[in-house]
Amino acid sequence: MRFTAERRLDDGVLEREFTLDDIPGYLWTSDAAPAPLILLGHPGGLPTMYPRLAARARHTVAAGFAAATLELPGCGKRPRSTVADEARADLRRAVRAGGPVADEIVDRLVLPPIEEAVPEVRAALDALLEVPGIGGPVGYAGGVTALGLRLAVVEPRLAALLLFAGSYVPRAVVEEARRVTVPVLVLLQWDDVDNDRQRALDVFDALGSAEKTLHANTGGHTGVPAFEGDDANRFFARHLLR
Amino acid sequence: MRFTAERRLDDGVLEREFTLDDIPGYLWTSDAAPAPLILLGHPGGLPTMYPRLAARARHTVAAGFAAATLELPGCGKRPRSTVADEARADLRRAVRAGGPVADEIVDRLVLPPIEEAVPEVRAALDALLEVPGIGGPVGYAGGVTALGLRLAVVEPRLAALLLFAGSYVPRAVVEEARRVTVPVLVLLQWDDVDNDRQRALDVFDALGSAEKTLHANTGGHTGVPAFEGDDANRFFARHLLR
Repeated sequence: MRFTAERRLDDGVLEREFTLDDIPGYLWTSDAAPAPLILLGHPGGLPTMYPRLAARARHTVAAGFAAATLELPGCGKRPRSTVADEARADLRRAVRAGGPVADEIVDRLVLPPIEEAVPEVRAALDALLEVPGIGGPVGYAGGVTALGLRLAVVEPRLAALLLFAGSYVPRAVVEEARRVTVPVLVLLQWDDVDNDRQRALDVFDALGSAEKTLHANTGGHTGVPAFEGDDANRFFARHLLR
Repeated sequence: MRFTAERRLDDGVLEREFTLDDIPGYLWTSDAAPAPLILLGHPGGLPTMYPRLAARARHTVAAGFAAATLELPGCGKRPRSTVADEARADLRRAVRAGGPVADEIVDRLVLPPIEEAVPEVRAALDALLEVPGIGGPVGYAGGVTALGLRLAVVEPRLAALLLFAGSYVPRAVVEEARRVTVPVLVLLQWDDVDNDRQRALDVFDALGSAEKTLHANTGGHTGVPAFEGDDANRFFARHLLR
């Protein structure tokens, strides 16, 4: 892992850009004691997602954590993937046609990049947990349900999972949820027109975790109430700060 | 309203028993500044419910509120109602038979006592809001969805509603939920075998409130996690403490 840029934000948070095998990412830390790391999930495209991710990261760091994020395969400044581009085009066509999006499109859209991303995220974890000031168990917080669930199943360092139900979820991923045992908080925007509410409830129902909580709120995809950010920090504090 | 007993609990909370037109109730207050009042809903039967209600009341008062509760018609030490007793017997038979409980049984079980309870609760509010140390907007927190929703529709002093989805809910009450406009927090125990999960989700979906939040957790009827008590206090603080 190589740090490529560094700056101090006005609230004292240290923001560092890094690359890991040419994959770009961000790390946000404070100068306080070693802190558990929260991985911030996003739908891909760091240059576009940066403002929202940085705001979430600062809120996370202020609550006593470190935060990091990694570009997804085929997104942002990473090489495009023909498979992913075709799946996205098919998705756009299906959405424009007004009908439901066929499962096979969702599978092609979500599953290949997740297969590729999981080992990348785990390698990033190896490197990030060596950075001074980062330690302890790891959390994942983000909108890519399939990635969060897969990480929760295969990555023993991941001790708590916050899923933002706002993405297309392959049927197979609902089955994978049964294998998850770490505590989970699912955020669901009740009026998110691009989100399949029933699929999100199915994921929540399937989760094998002894402690799982669903928070549903009025509003669309970007209308998550501010108090949910505080609830998220309290969820991670319960499970990652000992 | 006549106070009939008074004692100081070990955490400094003043607990008073009262009667209002022969209806028994409890009031819990602290000696701090005037506090908004939270009405604690329950399924009826104060002598049995007292320990759980007192625990909730002490937690509520510790967060800066007053708390009060009133016996429901036909319950506890109040005169029995033949209609309610027959409905309860029919309910028990239906549950023992293992089938779903017919809507007309739920209607007979829930609707008549609610019709009777609403003016009683409103009269109790009139009296309670005259007690020194109680003031400001009112919240309702409890398991009787039909009563909470009706109060939210007809009682302008009620400014925030916490519903514990754990009771039988007549279909007509789902429709009434559309008329509710105050902020609502719905608590749903995901594995509550005696509760109709889909009916609870229907109520949440129907609520007309601009701010509504659903918290669902693993566990049965009495397994509400302790952190939900804190979340409940934060919900009321957002809307009742200004």
